[in-house]
Parts: sequence; structure tokens; C-alpha cells
Amino acid sequence: MTTLAVRYTAARSLDTASVETSPPGTGEVELAPAFVGICGTDLHIFHGDMDARVAAPAVLGHEMSGRVVRVGPDVEGWQPGDAVTVMPLRWDDACPACRAGHQHICRRLDFIGIDSPGAMQQRWTVPAATLVRLPHTLPLDHAALVEPTAVAVHDVGRAGVREGEKVVVVGGGPVGVLIALVARAAGADVRIAELSPHRRALAQQLGLTAWDPATADITHLVNAWTEDAGADVAFEVSGAAGGVDTAVDVLGVRGRLCLVAIHPRPREIDLHRFFWRELTLVGARLYDRTDFENAVALVADGTVPAQRLISKIVPLTQAPAAFEALEGGGDVMKILVDCTAGADAAEGAAA
Amino acid sequence: MTTLAVRYTAARSLDTASVETSPPGTGEVELAPAFVGICGTDLHIFHGDMDARVAAPAVLGHEMSGRVVRVGPDVEGWQPGDAVTVMPLRWDDACPACRAGHQHICRRLDFIGIDSPGAMQQRWTVPAATLVRLPHTLPLDHAALVEPTAVAVHDVGRAGVREGEKVVVVGGGPVGVLIALVARAAGADVRIAELSPHRRALAQQLGLTAWDPATADITHLVNAWTEDAGADVAFEVSGAAGGVDTAVDVLGVRGRLCLVAIHPRPREIDLHRFFWRELTLVGARLYDRTDFENAVALVADGTVPAQRLISKIVPLTQAPAAFEALEGGGDVMKILVDCTAGADAAEGAAA
Repeated sequence: MTTLAVRYTAARSLDTASVETSPPGTGEVELAPAFVGICGTDLHIFHGDMDARVAAPAVLGHEMSGRVVRVGPDVEGWQPGDAVTVMPLRWDDACPACRAGHQHICRRLDFIGIDSPGAMQQRWTVPAATLVRLPHTLPLDHAALVEPTAVAVHDVGRAGVREGEKVVVVGGGPVGVLIALVARAAGADVRIAELSPHRRALAQQLGLTAWDPATADITHLVNAWTEDAGADVAFEVSGAAGGVDTAVDVLGVRGRLCLVAIHPRPREIDLHRFFWRELTLVGARLYDRTDFENAVALVADGTVPAQRLISKIVPLTQAPAAFEALEGGGDVMKILVDCTAGADAAEGAAA
Repeated sequence: MTTLAVRYTAARSLDTASVETSPPGTGEVELAPAFVGICGTDLHIFHGDMDARVAAPAVLGHEMSGRVVRVGPDVEGWQPGDAVTVMPLRWDDACPACRAGHQHICRRLDFIGIDSPGAMQQRWTVPAATLVRLPHTLPLDHAALVEPTAVAVHDVGRAGVREGEKVVVVGGGPVGVLIALVARAAGADVRIAELSPHRRALAQQLGLTAWDPATADITHLVNAWTEDAGADVAFEVSGAAGGVDTAVDVLGVRGRLCLVAIHPRPREIDLHRFFWRELTLVGARLYDRTDFENAVALVADGTVPAQRLISKIVPLTQAPAAFEALEGGGDVMKILVDCTAGADAAEGAAA
């Protein structure tokens, strides 16, 4: 059968097209995606920055919610209609990372939605092992935020945030705000540094204090806030060279810097500060199943107020236009693609 | 009274001169230094690189052994003749670092031998709180290696080296070799990367494998050694930009890089590798009292074969010439200054 899908076709070019779907094989499940978030990584792909890794045409999308439609042979525990999200990782269980128990860093990791077809389509076949069950009470649009929340849970875990600690999040986009919310839920006192007034305003509405690094000296503010002790933890979520400097500068003795953003090129780092204050830098990537299950709970219980983070929901056919709109940057948080809406073409094709 | 001392007087200029010593005040002890090691930091001072911090004329030396001569008022537990080394740190117990229990990173740390007069003299008055007792069986020349061994103990602790781990030490000078020895004693399998043939040969004599980064691709060797998994821990002890790159490149998934060397200027770091492999960078500075006491035990029981690491012992009057000789670099390991020899001038002055 065919399904309508959002495809990356070339740098700065997306289309929606009918693509062939395969029925679920052994151990696989066919899903009907409901909502799929547009992620920063999707934008990198759209910009053509990941052409070395992404083979066009490529169906995008890895932040999703949906329902089981059909199960393949040898799949147990799942029924049509079950509400699910997908932890979009497939590993080889053979490389040194997998053998050491770090499957999410597998040498031959298949990140579904980047390295293989993603969720922005009406039907999507994935391994049953990637499914994560959603509570009945959790609206499916909210559940599309589970994947980025799992990133935040993993980051906060890697940084070892403890109750009462003072945390600075450099960069208040979706992942930055989610980190702030998860760190706050862990008992930390959190400040965000973010250039966009829109994003700062949203953070404030969530009860988070957000500072403008364009008009204020963040290190000075942190020193005042911490009585000159410096922050316990900083998260670098901006991807900017200046963001790295800020994240280093705000830390007190034995402070931990969790590196979340992707910095494709080497950055100059003040190693003398790392020596002098015995700082720690921790890289964080993706998540494991425990992070994902914790994320489901945090979205379901409202710790992550998903509704407030969803700026807009667009039908699948309007996803290409939504990517264009996101180019503008800071005036939105999360945009979801509704894969169940505007789907007449595919329904016709499937008949 | 006066004592003969080795003084830094200006960039690339040392002398020996009679200096005034003060009798031990309340809580202080007067020592007769026996042996004092020449440290890389002393060479930095000699080169004039630390003139912003060191006020000439300055008596150098902080790696020492000696005996108690006199105790001041309110000093308990120490008697003339006791063999001691000194943990050369004085902190304010008031700054945020001290309040957090990290006195060795005190904001107003007095590092004795850099910020205040050091041990390269015949009499040296220090706070009794800095004294660390030496076993009767430990020769005093060997005991001069306790301080750099405490650095190595601290570094290995910061890196969290565990039994069976594979460890790469980038830079095989005195501190690098001591780290290798301490890590080996903790059950690790260790390799050293070191440019100097002399230092590589010494490491081999100690049963350590040392590679030449000028003629071999260290990352390639580590991959072969670890069956492509990468090292668990790397220590950057070289202070060179290339050393940092090597220390990052050799690490496997979740590897830890312990930053020991001082890098006065920012260095370009491959942050993408930190993200991709979830690496950790840990700064390490100085030591605490537990590190020092562990170091005494490691030197005393021969885990650190001090005799093999001592290249030469020179009388105090020849210390300036020894600094000049150390300019040459790699053909020596540790040079000790014997403060009890060649001291006629001062004995005359003290009479």
C-alpha cells in the first residue's frame, strides 16, 4: 500500500508524496502516527547540513505519538489501537559500546527518522522493540513531546543534578526549556539564558527565570544569585561558541558542564578554568529506555506542561511550509505535524 | 637568624643568598629541610612566566622532606627530630570552595613555595597543620617525591580509575610516570605516550610500556590494544595542544579525560567527540590530606620506586646551575636539592 509522507528531497527542499509502505515483518509493528514534532535535527537535515548521512528522498520525523494498526509475526503484548511512542533507536548489540551496555551510542546506530524512514507519514513500520506504551489519559499531541523530554531526562541524569543545586541552562529552545523543567522537578533552582524574547516570555510563564545574554552579563548575574559561589551545573544547549564560554564561566568549584548542543567544529575551551576550579565536562547524547519511560511519566503528570510548549499543529500536507516558517527561529517553540489531518490523497491511494 | 636559600630574583635568574628566618610563632614549626625536588612549576617561575603571581626575590621549593627543629607555642604532637614532609597549602576556610569542603581550591589559597617562601633553604618555618609524618624507614631523599606522588594520587582519584581499566598517560615526565605507577597500583593496564627517548627508557625499566608519538600513531596503537574499544581513561600531562587531541582521540565510549597539565591559553577541543561518545573531561588540581597520606604509603612501600626516579641530587649552592641544566628537558627525571650539603656559608652566618 501507499502512504502520504513528508520527504526531504534536497537542501532546503521538502515535498509530500505517496510512498510505498511494507507490511510489518517478523517482530515489527505497523503504526498510524498521530502527531510528529519538528526537531532541530530535522531542520539541520532540511538545511542540507546532514547530506553526508541522510540519503534523499528521506521521510523525516522521530518525535512522535500514534497507535498500533497491525502487528507482524512473533510480536507479543501489542494490540491494534494501543497508544504508543517510539524510542527511535536500533543498535547492533555487537560493537564495543553495546557490549559495554551503552546501546544508544552503538557504533552502527540506526537512528530511525535520520538513518532510516521516519514518522511523518500516515503509516510507519518499526520494530516492536522500539515501542513505549502511553497511558490512556495522555493526549496524543502531548505525547509527541516524550522524545525530546527523554533527551532532557538523559541530560539531567548525565549532569547528576541534585536537590538544591543551582543550575544554568544556556539556550532556552525546546530542549533547553525541557532540561530546565526536568532539573526543577529534580529539586534544582534553575536560570535560563536565552536571546529570544518570545522564548524568554514562555519560560517566565512556566515559572522559570530567563535572562537575556544580549543585555546582561550572565556570569555577573550568576555570581550575584549564588553569593559568588558560582553555579553547580550548566547545560550548553545553544550550540554557539559564546554559549560554551558562558557555560564555563558561570560554574563554581567542581561545577559540571553538560554538553547537549552539537558543535560540528572544534571550540576553544578555557582549560585553565577546568584545572583551576576542578570543573567537569560531560557529553550527553540521546537516551535509554529508562529515560524514555521517565519522560512518559513527566509528560503524563504535567511536570512537562506539553500544551504550553506546543506553538502550533499543522496538517501533514502543510509540513513543508512549517519548516520554512521555523527558519525564522525564536518566535515558536514546538510545531507538531498532525499525520491524521489533510490526508485525503493517501486515503484515496490506500483504497 | 639567617639561612642560606635559593631565590628567584628575576626571569631566568636565581641566586643563593642568606635570608632572615623568623622563629616559629604560635602554631608554627621550624624545619630543617633535607631534600627538595625541582618541579615543573619551579621552572615556570624561573622562566618568568609567573611573575604576576610570584614576588621576587622569592625562595622556591614545595616538594620536600626534612626534620622538625623547633616547635612554636600551642603546637602539639611534634618533637624536634621528627621526619616530616609538608602539604604546602594554606586556605582561608571562608570562601565558597572551602565551605564546600574543597580547601585545596580555596579562592585565596596560599601555595607555600609559590605565594609565600618555599623549602629550598636550611631553615623553614611553616604552620604545624601542614606537616605530614614520615615513617622512620623512609629515606628522606625518597620522601621528597611524596608531594608529586600526592598529585598523581589525586589525579587517579579524580579520573576514577578502576581495576582492569585501560589507561593512556599523555606525557611521561615525573608527574606522568607517577600517574602511571599509581594507576597501575589501582589495577589498571597503562600505556604512556612520551617524546623523550630517555623518559621512555626509564618508563620501560619500571615495567611500563611507553610509545613514541613522533613515530607512531597513538590512536592506532590504542585501537589495536583495546580491540577497537578505545581507552577507558586518558591523562593529559603534556601541556601541548597535540597532547589534548591525542587524549580525546584515544578514548572509547564514556571515556574520561583527566586534565592534569596547565594550559594557560584556551585550546580547541573536539566537542562533537565529547557528545558522540559521551566523554567526560575532569579537571584535577593539587591534592588533599588523604591524597598526601596515601602518597606517603606508596613511596614508603616501593609502589613508587623513588630511587629510580631521582636522576641527580645537587647541593643547595648548585641549585641555580641545576635549573639551567633542566632547561634541556627530557634527559632527566627528578632533580633534588640537598639542603644539608654545601651549607658552610649559612652555618657561618648562623653562628
